[in-house]
Amino acid sequence: MRIAVVAPSCALKREAADRVQAIAKARGDCEIVVHPQCFLSDGHFAGPDEARLAALREVMADPDIDAVWFARGGYGSNRIAQAAATALPEAARTKLYLGYSDAGFLHAAFHKAGLDVAWGPMPQDAMREGGDSAVKRALDWIVRRDPTALEPGLSRPAMAFNLTVLSNLLGTALEPDFTGVDLLIEEVSEHLYATDRTMFHLTSSPNIRKAARLRLGRVSDILPNDPDWGTNAEAIIEDWCARSGVPYGGRADIGHDAANRVVPFA
Amino acid sequence: MRIAVVAPSCALKREAADRVQAIAKARGDCEIVVHPQCFLSDGHFAGPDEARLAALREVMADPDIDAVWFARGGYGSNRIAQAAATALPEAARTKLYLGYSDAGFLHAAFHKAGLDVAWGPMPQDAMREGGDSAVKRALDWIVRRDPTALEPGLSRPAMAFNLTVLSNLLGTALEPDFTGVDLLIEEVSEHLYATDRTMFHLTSSPNIRKAARLRLGRVSDILPNDPDWGTNAEAIIEDWCARSGVPYGGRADIGHDAANRVVPFA
Repeated sequence: MRIAVVAPSCALKREAADRVQAIAKARGDCEIVVHPQCFLSDGHFAGPDEARLAALREVMADPDIDAVWFARGGYGSNRIAQAAATALPEAARTKLYLGYSDAGFLHAAFHKAGLDVAWGPMPQDAMREGGDSAVKRALDWIVRRDPTALEPGLSRPAMAFNLTVLSNLLGTALEPDFTGVDLLIEEVSEHLYATDRTMFHLTSSPNIRKAARLRLGRVSDILPNDPDWGTNAEAIIEDWCARSGVPYGGRADIGHDAANRVVPFA
Repeated sequence: MRIAVVAPSCALKREAADRVQAIAKARGDCEIVVHPQCFLSDGHFAGPDEARLAALREVMADPDIDAVWFARGGYGSNRIAQAAATALPEAARTKLYLGYSDAGFLHAAFHKAGLDVAWGPMPQDAMREGGDSAVKRALDWIVRRDPTALEPGLSRPAMAFNLTVLSNLLGTALEPDFTGVDLLIEEVSEHLYATDRTMFHLTSSPNIRKAARLRLGRVSDILPNDPDWGTNAEAIIEDWCARSGVPYGGRADIGHDAANRVVPFA
């Protein structure tokens, strides 16, 4: 099993790449091929759009690569997602694509194009406290579709997104069909007033209103609200679910942390 | 000329209300009626949704009120905008509505409903350095449509929005028709990576692509980008204009500051 790592958003830390390759070597069931593009730097990004797109399309087209693992989030995959999902080579259709956070732009476009995508931990997570368990969980899913890696509440077709990423792909060419899907969302490093505003945007969408349920992952590193918001993130999500008629399905075991579970799109 | 002040988002400072009323008294050409709702507090907001909506609808329906001046921005007008624009009383159609920032949700809904709205300084701006000139500019427009209050580059139908507010009203019931309009945008307190992401969202919209031009106001209080973004806000806007085919119309004299000019929607 050969797993390619590319960075469609921000650059990967060398230490994270080394750690992930060491874990894979110790397992003995997979090989991690870290594309040199992961370490490029161009302002905010892991290289210019052209370099990030070229690396991604290269591993997508490689029949010897079984899975494409997005190195990390940050920001930038939206700038190449539509081009990456266009004129797909046949080899792109036989592999798995795994990641989360900013990679959601790619998840949306690739799922829409019929590719096999999943939300789950990324190589950069090796740097987190407890990060080895996140890497293990991701590899358990990539290599042998181990069901213990899965988010435990999956009961129907599901998708998972960072809330801000999801809001920013609505109305774009990347937007998939949410009909009948359990939509799992999570958020990080936002003010609660911004989360409320994003939920207004999200639940105003006729497409989002066709989702079966919204389920809430962890909302972490919440920025201060002045004055105090008064309630909490779950109350915000429940409020907008009630206003829009989208059933609230309770909490989900995903988030920007080492405990983040796998959600295959279906 | 009687001007009502209501707060559809966050609470107004007493000192700002006092200052604005003193300025109006000294001018002698208008009376500022500050609705007590402006000083309510409910977590983030100037009172619960019901109280903010009731105060707004009360002054809209009052035939003795010539203009409605939104007290300040912050966040929250989106939660009542659609209800405020529904079943409009006749008296609502004969007055001007002025404000900016979060008030953009109301501007969009009210303009769509055929009301007379304008982007421009708000009472809370009295607290800014040089705020008296902002208040004077707003009153010069409200009271006597003084053309020196206007943004100097207006040459065709125009609208002005905070970029994040505009992004969050796309796809909602509030979204107006941008066909043939000069769209003036400004931003405050965001990271440049977020501005780039918001511009991706904005310029993906078929409706936004019908605008005559995008013009960029001030982008202020930019939050740090790690790593450094590499270019600047104007380069971001020009890039997305080029990618989407929306002509870039250069800079505009609006922003979250005392120099902010008036842009009547048309």
